[in-house]
Amino acid sequence: MTSSLPTRPGPDLAHDPDLAAVAPVIRALRERAPLVHCITATVSMEIVANGLLAAGARPMMTETLAEAPVVTTVADALAVNLGTLSTDAMEGIPAVVEVAVRDGRPWVLDPTAIGLAPVRTPLARGLLDSRPAVVRGNASEVLALVGSGAGGRGADSLAVPESAEAAAREVVRKSGGAVAVSGETDLVLDAGRRALVARGTSQLTRVTGTGCLLGALTAACSVVAEDGFEAALAATVWMNVAGELAAERAAGPGSFRMELLDALDAVGAEGS
Amino acid sequence: MTSSLPTRPGPDLAHDPDLAAVAPVIRALRERAPLVHCITATVSMEIVANGLLAAGARPMMTETLAEAPVVTTVADALAVNLGTLSTDAMEGIPAVVEVAVRDGRPWVLDPTAIGLAPVRTPLARGLLDSRPAVVRGNASEVLALVGSGAGGRGADSLAVPESAEAAAREVVRKSGGAVAVSGETDLVLDAGRRALVARGTSQLTRVTGTGCLLGALTAACSVVAEDGFEAALAATVWMNVAGELAAERAAGPGSFRMELLDALDAVGAEGS
Amino acid sequence: MTSSLPTRPGPDLAHDPDLAAVAPVIRALRERAPLVHCITATVSMEIVANGLLAAGARPMMTETLAEAPVVTTVADALAVNLGTLSTDAMEGIPAVVEVAVRDGRPWVLDPTAIGLAPVRTPLARGLLDSRPAVVRGNASEVLALVGSGAGGRGADSLAVPESAEAAAREVVRKSGGAVAVSGETDLVLDAGRRALVARGTSQLTRVTGTGCLLGALTAACSVVAEDGFEAALAATVWMNVAGELAAERAAGPGSFRMELLDALDAVGAEGS
Repeated sequence: MTSSLPTRPGPDLAHDPDLAAVAPVIRALRERAPLVHCITATVSMEIVANGLLAAGARPMMTETLAEAPVVTTVADALAVNLGTLSTDAMEGIPAVVEVAVRDGRPWVLDPTAIGLAPVRTPLARGLLDSRPAVVRGNASEVLALVGSGAGGRGADSLAVPESAEAAAREVVRKSGGAVAVSGETDLVLDAGRRALVARGTSQLTRVTGTGCLLGALTAACSVVAEDGFEAALAATVWMNVAGELAAERAAGPGSFRMELLDALDAVGAEGS
Repeated sequence: MTSSLPTRPGPDLAHDPDLAAVAPVIRALRERAPLVHCITATVSMEIVANGLLAAGARPMMTETLAEAPVVTTVADALAVNLGTLSTDAMEGIPAVVEVAVRDGRPWVLDPTAIGLAPVRTPLARGLLDSRPAVVRGNASEVLALVGSGAGGRGADSLAVPESAEAAAREVVRKSGGAVAVSGETDLVLDAGRRALVARGTSQLTRVTGTGCLLGALTAACSVVAEDGFEAALAATVWMNVAGELAAERAAGPGSFRMELLDALDAVGAEGS
Repeated sequence: MTSSLPTRPGPDLAHDPDLAAVAPVIRALRERAPLVHCITATVSMEIVANGLLAAGARPMMTETLAEAPVVTTVADALAVNLGTLSTDAMEGIPAVVEVAVRDGRPWVLDPTAIGLAPVRTPLARGLLDSRPAVVRGNASEVLALVGSGAGGRGADSLAVPESAEAAAREVVRKSGGAVAVSGETDLVLDAGRRALVARGTSQLTRVTGTGCLLGALTAACSVVAEDGFEAALAATVWMNVAGELAAERAAGPGSFRMELLDALDAVGAEGS
């Protein structure tokens, strides 16, 4: 068995204050290696699964009504992303959320591309009643969740996070949890706290599924964090710092995607 | 925010005559960043989405009858690949094509693996009536589209493009658009023009989904090109030159796949 | 056309005794380039397809009842992995297995995540009657296949292969074929033979779908090997030696995944 890997120089993560603030959550996640049941866009499944594995969590992915709810019973957390919303997922999602709520497992809602699409928009709004620990989306999606704006065109945001702050506060009132609004600067808030994270790289928008991965990583962090706000903040910093590290090492969007997975594994290891 | 990436030496793309001929389309695509609704094989979704993002377009992927047609209404172009042809896609494809035709959006048909399979073969033939701007396939698929040959065994072609030229001309007569036949030498033609593209690398056949990506890139190009022929030619040159660049940098099929995405981003940037 | 790739130094594969023992199967596979119909977890489709291509085989992937059985008629082998088990796959799997059995094609069963899930567990047990050439799984899955243990939590094994040896022998009695139990040490056995393969790297568990790929590679090998045992042994050594080579070259789980595909292509080429 060979397991040692060569190391490479990178930014001075050991003295990064944003990272230091969330390092306890990162270390606790790696210690716990939580099982996360992920329902996500088909196109993002691979990066979500490998991103969780790189971070130290363990993904599970099934979405049929026949099997998905049973799988949720053994998961530590649930991440529901409406990305593809296949017929199987349309049937499975309400049932897995019901299991997570019944069993007291934290769950994260990622209302991908809501606004225009006729099934996912009312589905996402209705799921707020099931009190997700975190709602994660871009500004367009958070606006659409409370009935403002027209929603995203595809999976990318047209609006900046701050423009969605009032909508995010309304989501917090409805869900009782935290909301993370992704953008050039990320906004994380709940009923009592608010954080802006001005980290990351525009390269993250050149790779499909990085937002989906952030949602799933947030679900993984919610297993070991104090609450949804702390989980969302830790996952947001982790992804963005990993993105910065990957951008330094990459030569384009293909190598950035590969380096991002290496960086998710590397970030946070310096303090352990 | 970090966004600068290191640069690496490569072929002298600035003096590549094939690339120079299509560079205006590449630049126009990056300026426009078209939204492309892609229905594609599940196995190729990731490379299609990340390939479009690397090129400068924006992918959207949903295929259910309930949501896909609404998504098409906001797309700049539509790419329909019959690769997986799930039950959701069987229902969604005719409906999204109808929207594209109604709204005057260019659309591309990629009749993957037709010939043997009983649902996709009549479906693909019927879709010619909806006048795709471009039909892109390998020689076996183009032959099968007009009822010649037995179709591909899997997604790889057994026949060379030139052998499908008569069939391609028949497709042009039926669709009124252009046809691109992929192979070691690519053939692009419409009612009045014909081009052979003897570029690329055999490494492109060692990675799944490069043909699907070429179809989706053709759809993206069709938003900014004069017509289907120009779009198909630009996408074909772009993919093949990127493949050559990637092959110079890669050490095997895994690294080739990564380098291909970097190269799609790099190609065409030298003249801007 | 550019096709030459740079070469890099690596372990002395030319003098690796485990590899030498299975090199004839590797060479025969590359000569034959078998078509393998793969039904696999959605999340693993990309690595399964590109891994087979890197190894020298050709993947095909469709799973609907309407088309999948027809596709199987032209395949050289069939790999059935229960990973996602979509509604389409639930309907398609029994039909494709029936075609493989009728046409005398070797097929491999990968009973992913059985034990807890209510549809796949009886499905997998019933499929043993269709005499798969090889059953490949981790210890938890092999135990669950004969009704022992609770099955895996997700796709990773909680039990070591040796603990499943009695269960593996019972599977051999039922299926008449070979069984490969994956773990830190891999166990391969049939009615008359038994091999332990103590090769590989823990990095293989940090990438999703490597087990699915091993099952599909086993199916590809079964086209050219003497029997299921020889196919399973060859595929197991091939994957593990490629994993060792990739681990030497990788800097984390993202680069390991890329290097694994390069290594599947490189391994076995030294003796040809």
